[in-house]
Amino acid sequence: MTTTIDKTAGTPGKYKVLGTRPVRHDGIEKVTGAARYGADMNMPEMLHGKILRSPHAHARIRSIDTSKAEALPGVMAVATSKDLPIIQARELNPGQGGPRLLAENDLADKKVLYKGHAVAAVAATSPHIAEEALALIAVDYEVLPTVLGWREAMKEGATLLHDNLTEKFSATRGGAGEDTGNKSNVASHLQLKMGNVEQGFKEADTILEREYNTQTIHQGYIEPFACTAQWIPEGRLTIWTSTQGIFGVRGNVAAILNIPESMIKIVPMEIGGGFGGKGTGYLEPVAAVLSKKTGHPIKMVMSRKEVFEGTGPSSGTSITVKIGAKKDGTITAAQLGMIYEAGAYPGSPMVGGVTSAVSAYKIDNVLIDGYDVVCNKPKTAAYRAPGHPQAAFAAESALDELADMLGMDPMDLRLKNVAMEGDRAVTGVPHAHVGLKEVMDVMKAHPHYTAPLGGPNRGRGVATGYRLNGGGSGSSATINVLANGTVNLTTGSMDLSGTRVAIAMQVAETLGLTAEEVTPQVVDTDSVGWTGGSGGSRITFDTGRASIAAAQLVIEQMGARAARLWEVQPEDVEFVDGIFICTKNTDDKFTFKELAGKLMTTGGPVTCSAMDTQGGVGGALAGNIFDVEVDPETGKVDILRSTVFLDIGQAAHPSYVEGQMQGGTLQGIGWALNEEYFFTPEGVMANSSLLDYRMPTSLDLPMIDTVIIEYANPRHPYGLRGAGEHPIIAPLPAMANAVSRAIGVRMATLPISPGAILEAIEKKNTNK
Amino acid sequence: MTTTIDKTAGTPGKYKVLGTRPVRHDGIEKVTGAARYGADMNMPEMLHGKILRSPHAHARIRSIDTSKAEALPGVMAVATSKDLPIIQARELNPGQGGPRLLAENDLADKKVLYKGHAVAAVAATSPHIAEEALALIAVDYEVLPTVLGWREAMKEGATLLHDNLTEKFSATRGGAGEDTGNKSNVASHLQLKMGNVEQGFKEADTILEREYNTQTIHQGYIEPFACTAQWIPEGRLTIWTSTQGIFGVRGNVAAILNIPESMIKIVPMEIGGGFGGKGTGYLEPVAAVLSKKTGHPIKMVMSRKEVFEGTGPSSGTSITVKIGAKKDGTITAAQLGMIYEAGAYPGSPMVGGVTSAVSAYKIDNVLIDGYDVVCNKPKTAAYRAPGHPQAAFAAESALDELADMLGMDPMDLRLKNVAMEGDRAVTGVPHAHVGLKEVMDVMKAHPHYTAPLGGPNRGRGVATGYRLNGGGSGSSATINVLANGTVNLTTGSMDLSGTRVAIAMQVAETLGLTAEEVTPQVVDTDSVGWTGGSGGSRITFDTGRASIAAAQLVIEQMGARAARLWEVQPEDVEFVDGIFICTKNTDDKFTFKELAGKLMTTGGPVTCSAMDTQGGVGGALAGNIFDVEVDPETGKVDILRSTVFLDIGQAAHPSYVEGQMQGGTLQGIGWALNEEYFFTPEGVMANSSLLDYRMPTSLDLPMIDTVIIEYANPRHPYGLRGAGEHPIIAPLPAMANAVSRAIGVRMATLPISPGAILEAIEKKNTNK
Repeated sequence: MTTTIDKTAGTPGKYKVLGTRPVRHDGIEKVTGAARYGADMNMPEMLHGKILRSPHAHARIRSIDTSKAEALPGVMAVATSKDLPIIQARELNPGQGGPRLLAENDLADKKVLYKGHAVAAVAATSPHIAEEALALIAVDYEVLPTVLGWREAMKEGATLLHDNLTEKFSATRGGAGEDTGNKSNVASHLQLKMGNVEQGFKEADTILEREYNTQTIHQGYIEPFACTAQWIPEGRLTIWTSTQGIFGVRGNVAAILNIPESMIKIVPMEIGGGFGGKGTGYLEPVAAVLSKKTGHPIKMVMSRKEVFEGTGPSSGTSITVKIGAKKDGTITAAQLGMIYEAGAYPGSPMVGGVTSAVSAYKIDNVLIDGYDVVCNKPKTAAYRAPGHPQAAFAAESALDELADMLGMDPMDLRLKNVAMEGDRAVTGVPHAHVGLKEVMDVMKAHPHYTAPLGGPNRGRGVATGYRLNGGGSGSSATINVLANGTVNLTTGSMDLSGTRVAIAMQVAETLGLTAEEVTPQVVDTDSVGWTGGSGGSRITFDTGRASIAAAQLVIEQMGARAARLWEVQPEDVEFVDGIFICTKNTDDKFTFKELAGKLMTTGGPVTCSAMDTQGGVGGALAGNIFDVEVDPETGKVDILRSTVFLDIGQAAHPSYVEGQMQGGTLQGIGWALNEEYFFTPEGVMANSSLLDYRMPTSLDLPMIDTVIIEYANPRHPYGLRGAGEHPIIAPLPAMANAVSRAIGVRMATLPISPGAILEAIEKKNTNK
Repeated sequence: MTTTIDKTAGTPGKYKVLGTRPVRHDGIEKVTGAARYGADMNMPEMLHGKILRSPHAHARIRSIDTSKAEALPGVMAVATSKDLPIIQARELNPGQGGPRLLAENDLADKKVLYKGHAVAAVAATSPHIAEEALALIAVDYEVLPTVLGWREAMKEGATLLHDNLTEKFSATRGGAGEDTGNKSNVASHLQLKMGNVEQGFKEADTILEREYNTQTIHQGYIEPFACTAQWIPEGRLTIWTSTQGIFGVRGNVAAILNIPESMIKIVPMEIGGGFGGKGTGYLEPVAAVLSKKTGHPIKMVMSRKEVFEGTGPSSGTSITVKIGAKKDGTITAAQLGMIYEAGAYPGSPMVGGVTSAVSAYKIDNVLIDGYDVVCNKPKTAAYRAPGHPQAAFAAESALDELADMLGMDPMDLRLKNVAMEGDRAVTGVPHAHVGLKEVMDVMKAHPHYTAPLGGPNRGRGVATGYRLNGGGSGSSATINVLANGTVNLTTGSMDLSGTRVAIAMQVAETLGLTAEEVTPQVVDTDSVGWTGGSGGSRITFDTGRASIAAAQLVIEQMGARAARLWEVQPEDVEFVDGIFICTKNTDDKFTFKELAGKLMTTGGPVTCSAMDTQGGVGGALAGNIFDVEVDPETGKVDILRSTVFLDIGQAAHPSYVEGQMQGGTLQGIGWALNEEYFFTPEGVMANSSLLDYRMPTSLDLPMIDTVIIEYANPRHPYGLRGAGEHPIIAPLPAMANAVSRAIGVRMATLPISPGAILEAIEKKNTNK
């Protein structure tokens, strides 16, 4: 179902291609198995690389003896952090930030900081020999006390993970922060405030205070990390890899290996899921070093266990919420304390939580403190709307409870406080033309919201998820016009979610072609202008805008050709509905295809490139309604009905928007109900397989109904917004609200597993 | 040695990059074996294709029974011409020309026209099974009389190869020709004339008449044809192939398979030699059809025997020359009859011979008749300066003899008649600014020309080779500027001869960079604008011009960024010697690198594309001097000294110009002394291996000294001409002249093998 509310930015009802559902260009290759993913490389004389990983969650490396491994027949090279220039030459990157930390995560320097931390790598003639060789590497560890989570990390006198890490304090979102000089496991403290919360709470009739906790969870992409590197002796380094951003990988590899970016070519393979987790690479610099040492191409593929233990999950969090409101529902103040675990190195998505938690609402008095805390877990990575789901779980659960306390409908409470265009959030940024109220109105009016629940042990949960989409790092696009009137569209944006077709459709719309007449391709770093990674729900928007700009240049250049043929000036040519028309003689017309056929004889084919660095896809709102039934005997949650809402501005290809909405909801359900890393007290993950790490399957889920809301985005020529991330935010609180209402107990810790539910029910019954 | 005569078109003495000798960008990959050639593809589930070839030189195909082959375990598909839409649907291409003939050559339709003609193809799980299956295909042939050369083909009442081939007559170079209606093996007759030869011969004091003959010879590239095709069911067709022109292959495959070009992507592999012979593909449509039938990628690699028997060699020829001169050496008339064997289908390089033979000279009365004649040999293909070497062998041998008859120095005779700028050749085209006289002056003045021969049985031969370089089909180029001030240069021009570095150097010169700061790459048909094939010595010139134009757009766009930073107008910025300067405040300066680093914050990276369709690299002259000693006992020719001369306008990278000059000379020597197809009377090639087909080795050759002459080409911004083809033209006559002078007998038939020499000496002695 699609509800078009407003298309002021676009041209209402006039889109010929946008909003239709053509077969995606890469569809056949993907369903027939012809598409080539990270592990599908096979080169002559290729060797296989494997990584030795730490058995300890926290230890100092006294020494590494690789001699026995090197002596094993078939072993061609062994690498350690000594082979990474950025680690050895500290002057290359003296600070704590950026590539240096990536490098230490790729191959540990003096310490290992989590179970699974990479310590050494072997290249051998077969993966089996490489694995055998790993066992022959002797690492002398001095085991240190494990700091397994924020609670231990923030304790007075806690063991410190990093010798030289000091807490930074910042009072603005983008600020570098002020160094407090305090040696700490708290890497940074961000404090945002508006108004005066003390005063605000004084004005409140009702105040709720509560703590919410979530666990470390993983993105759960199907394809493990995989790459192949070939470093030509004294020549260029080529890396074929499955990543969300080839230019980002190029930059990181260049910094870690201390070579110019221009000596590196990153070739994208198809990507079997990323969800933010494949923005950062792990294997590329290691494979490159092994290739340099051996003179052979090196292929490295992680196992599932390595993916869980050695790559970035999302943060475990602890968030306190204090929120006050008047009797009429007006929220007078909100105060949040948000602790995000960063894992082994600084850099949790805490900022995403702080900036989004209550930003969909107009609250005059807000104080939020966010903390980025290191501990002996894998370094976290981005996961779809990074940091937002945890924050929304806290804030939107609190609103749900507050509504109950006020005796209000939960959607009415939200609508009472919803921020309107121009209202400033705690970030200081005024809201743009975003359908916050519109999404809430549609949710409240949706039949699902008022349908009878029809049975005992049932509950309905509702929540919204706000996010200011990201990016702004820029996208490039190049269009070649073929003689038969079709065009090739070249971008550097990895296609995680159907962006090839969604961008091609924007080009088709601009040029008056069908989607099939645009052939989109994603190419390597040598073959397209710089393009930021596929993340922040920005690609359909940013790369779309760059592609539209390139298409407009095509129209301009082709118009000049028509002018030459008609012997008029270029300004005498108009392009209307896919037709070039001479304004001086309106009988002179060319279709795009006709004119394309004349390019060779009027100066040659047209190739146009454009770049978009404005970014700023902007904020948007999503929402979920869940109906659940909880079995009080087993704690099992059955999802009876599920509806997801999203303000998409204008759907490019509605099927892929719906796919994003359903996929995000599914991942949010997993996060809410089942997923978590089980750690032993020593910091060893006890469920590092897809059998034991419980992601939802299709058997766990009902149909996820979608409601697309089109409230046009004025920043995009056709009104598009991003679709990728929002849908994962609201499912956490919506599910918690549904279960809490079904069992009559507030569930403030994720996951809400059957065990947790039974415990909560028992506690409620005991307290009665 | 380089002689710079004139650089009027360029900027004399000011080139920083052009004329230097940097390491080529693809050098390390090529010497270390990392470069991937046609046969280096390896894909999951790939099958292997093999071709069944005709044992008969001329036969009608009554039937093909593939059932036993299809039943062999491991065989996945068999294809015949029934699978090529262009052959089955005659309405697609009803004429005799173009893709239809290519298709019939790829898989024979109703007749086989030469021994080795492809008849059917098999795809199997291994190449061995595929070969085994070939033997199980039963072809019922009706064997027809073999028409093995022009002599049989042009005989009264000759067996006709084609039922519907009629002779076309044309009196202009580019004309389509007039259909004479005569069913014939003569496909076309081109007659060019100037003045009145009868009158001219009347004015002559001396007239020479002679017939010259050459045999079928092969380009002798090291890499056999190889390609891999993957046709996604209902999707696009991708072909990885070793070719001289990816866009040409795309066009041919599209026509043969009757699918749009936009559904095809041709990916270039490195090419292990082409010399014109790899302009046309043979395997691509067949591999595509087998891929479609099986759903698997298909790899096909020819054997050396298949390359000799199944791909295009150069024409055997028979050329009569009648030439008359006054006592002072003024040539009054020249009449040539030039028969070129086309092989099985029309299309010999006869036109190249007709237009070049005497075009370096100002002769007022010329009449040339050229004939394109089909016979039961493989269809000829282009070979380096197609048709020119055979023509020069005739014309420049005749001049040598004429000089003797006139008692003149051979170079003096040439200089007496050399054409000057503005003089019209028989083509009707006036000579441009070309160093014809200049090359001859340098040759005559060169120490080699007057050095004592120093022994008996020795002779010195001299000759020149003129060619109007070709192309004009257009080239595209795209440049990306990287933040570190280096640039990526993307073209679609296959690099046969060092053109990556030669074009990159032109970009470097334009942008004020070093050659190493430009990273050139050759990409697939989806990733760059349309670009004609690498041939006609046009790439360094045409793709160079397109790349310079793209670089100029880069300067323009970057200048606008500098203007923005300096808050001035774009026209207030100049680019001088690699520096952007503000003319309003000359203290404001950016190096290219500095400004490149600021692009991300001023609108994003710069990507610029340009196209050049003007072409017209123009004519040029090369020349050779050989000293030989002939052993009268064995007929063996020892080359004592060899010097090659070429007007290159301006050498981009002198090493690769010298390489072309030496390589062309070497191939010309092989053609002159040893190479030929030995056919049995049944039309079977008896020497189809590199052991039996005698190409020169390094042991056969002296150092080939090079003299580069730089007489700038006004059509190129830096004065460049093409280097690839000229050097193969003059070696044939120069060697014939040298041997003829050494043994005192005119050698008018190639190859001048030891046997031929002994026969000639014996005949001379007998006649005494």
